[in-house]
Amino acid sequence: MFTSRREVEIVWGDCDPANIVFYPRYFAWFDASTANHFAAAGLPKTELQRRFDVVGFPMVDTRAVFHVPSTHGETVAIETEITRFGRSSFDVTHRLMRGDVLAVEGFEKRVLVGRSDGGGICAVPVPDEVKALFA
Amino acid sequence: MFTSRREVEIVWGDCDPANIVFYPRYFAWFDASTANHFAAAGLPKTELQRRFDVVGFPMVDTRAVFHVPSTHGETVAIETEITRFGRSSFDVTHRLMRGDVLAVEGFEKRVLVGRSDGGGICAVPVPDEVKALFA
Amino acid sequence: MFTSRREVEIVWGDCDPANIVFYPRYFAWFDASTANHFAAAGLPKTELQRRFDVVGFPMVDTRAVFHVPSTHGETVAIETEITRFGRSSFDVTHRLMRGDVLAVEGFEKRVLVGRSDGGGICAVPVPDEVKALFA
Amino acid sequence: MFTSRREVEIVWGDCDPANIVFYPRYFAWFDASTANHFAAAGLPKTELQRRFDVVGFPMVDTRAVFHVPSTHGETVAIETEITRFGRSSFDVTHRLMRGDVLAVEGFEKRVLVGRSDGGGICAVPVPDEVKALFA
Repeated sequence: MFTSRREVEIVWGDCDPANIVFYPRYFAWFDASTANHFAAAGLPKTELQRRFDVVGFPMVDTRAVFHVPSTHGETVAIETEITRFGRSSFDVTHRLMRGDVLAVEGFEKRVLVGRSDGGGICAVPVPDEVKALFA
Repeated sequence: MFTSRREVEIVWGDCDPANIVFYPRYFAWFDASTANHFAAAGLPKTELQRRFDVVGFPMVDTRAVFHVPSTHGETVAIETEITRFGRSSFDVTHRLMRGDVLAVEGFEKRVLVGRSDGGGICAVPVPDEVKALFA
Repeated sequence: MFTSRREVEIVWGDCDPANIVFYPRYFAWFDASTANHFAAAGLPKTELQRRFDVVGFPMVDTRAVFHVPSTHGETVAIETEITRFGRSSFDVTHRLMRGDVLAVEGFEKRVLVGRSDGGGICAVPVPDEVKALFA
Repeated sequence: MFTSRREVEIVWGDCDPANIVFYPRYFAWFDASTANHFAAAGLPKTELQRRFDVVGFPMVDTRAVFHVPSTHGETVAIETEITRFGRSSFDVTHRLMRGDVLAVEGFEKRVLVGRSDGGGICAVPVPDEVKALFA
């Protein structure tokens, strides 16, 4: 599968009184990494919306496992991959690396949604063309 | 002028490695206090939008002065007042109290905006009816 | 098991451009709910540190499942329970309720840590006295 | 005066339901820019602490003026300068540029603090050697 990578420079305000990253920040970074993953594959979210009549890909289930803490002044790298496509859903895995060390793993299940007839949103099938971009 | 008051319970994740509130959090709390101020005066933002064709009141200028730090486990009170109405703008003052001690002062200048003919936003006069609510 | 409950008033700044809570905020609220859970059981974290020579209970694994979105102006309730004690670890479950509707579920695995001889931190057994408080 | 510059990539989670940056985020970025400014001048905060027995430079007064909003997907640049040194205090100015457009101005007054005899913190004079770095 296609893998993208981005760096995050950890700053003072990302850290808590234990002097390590306050863990909800990891989820915010992973969210940005998923957006970046689509852009890196040539399909930024705005393009996805325009071409496929999609509203977005809200999170339905996410998890993170914390192996090693990080702190301000450090730069970490997040490696992102879509590991599975379902009909409307897809799974994303993030590996946050502190040098060679796997520091945090992130997992996301998201669903592709469009506008329903009633004006709400509903799950829509992932177009084959989209799947192909990440193969 | 009408004064409203709300309490904020400071939590671990609001604090930085110096074990005190990371100061951008004060601005987030002041923003919520301004929203609460309108609601407390009987005009929640949604009502303001419906009745007066208003989009919102974006911030144009804000400042905070920090006298005493606070930390997690503490509950502070924010006292909010609109201190001046201009034609389209208004000034808000927040006093964050740690018990009897004035810990942080916040100042905001906001502008009431509506939809312009071109589809953008533009400043609109503050209705007298709105001003009256805060007198 | 002992259950605690706290309310969260969702504000504008908690929400994203889709006008719903930006999901990392749920993790911040769950973190505060776990701190509150210990306090509600009569053992605030500072007391835990003093009496049991404990440094804290860092997160090792956390997950959230999102059933229904929420937005600013709403008040939600978080019900918290410790569902399992291991030797040094414990599992926490959060149920975020939007009225009668289960909106978000949160799961945490944390480990009780103390100061190690070398000056670092190491897992320490959960005292029976602590377990008893949550039975 | 010495000017430093860093870029910030604005992400979805930085934005609010109006689809623009939630303004407290600007303060977090300015805080990181001040830390970066010291590092860019060859004196990262850790080095400042080691060499000059300094604890930090807490904020005493900060202000931002918002000219133009920004949104996710955009990359902005922050230009930072120390505009004045007092005995213990110093003023920082940030100019957040959206391309050629000055979008947000930030102002900070900070105080250099060290450990006092009683174990608290107290203002300490800014060493000439530090001032010289930013001339």
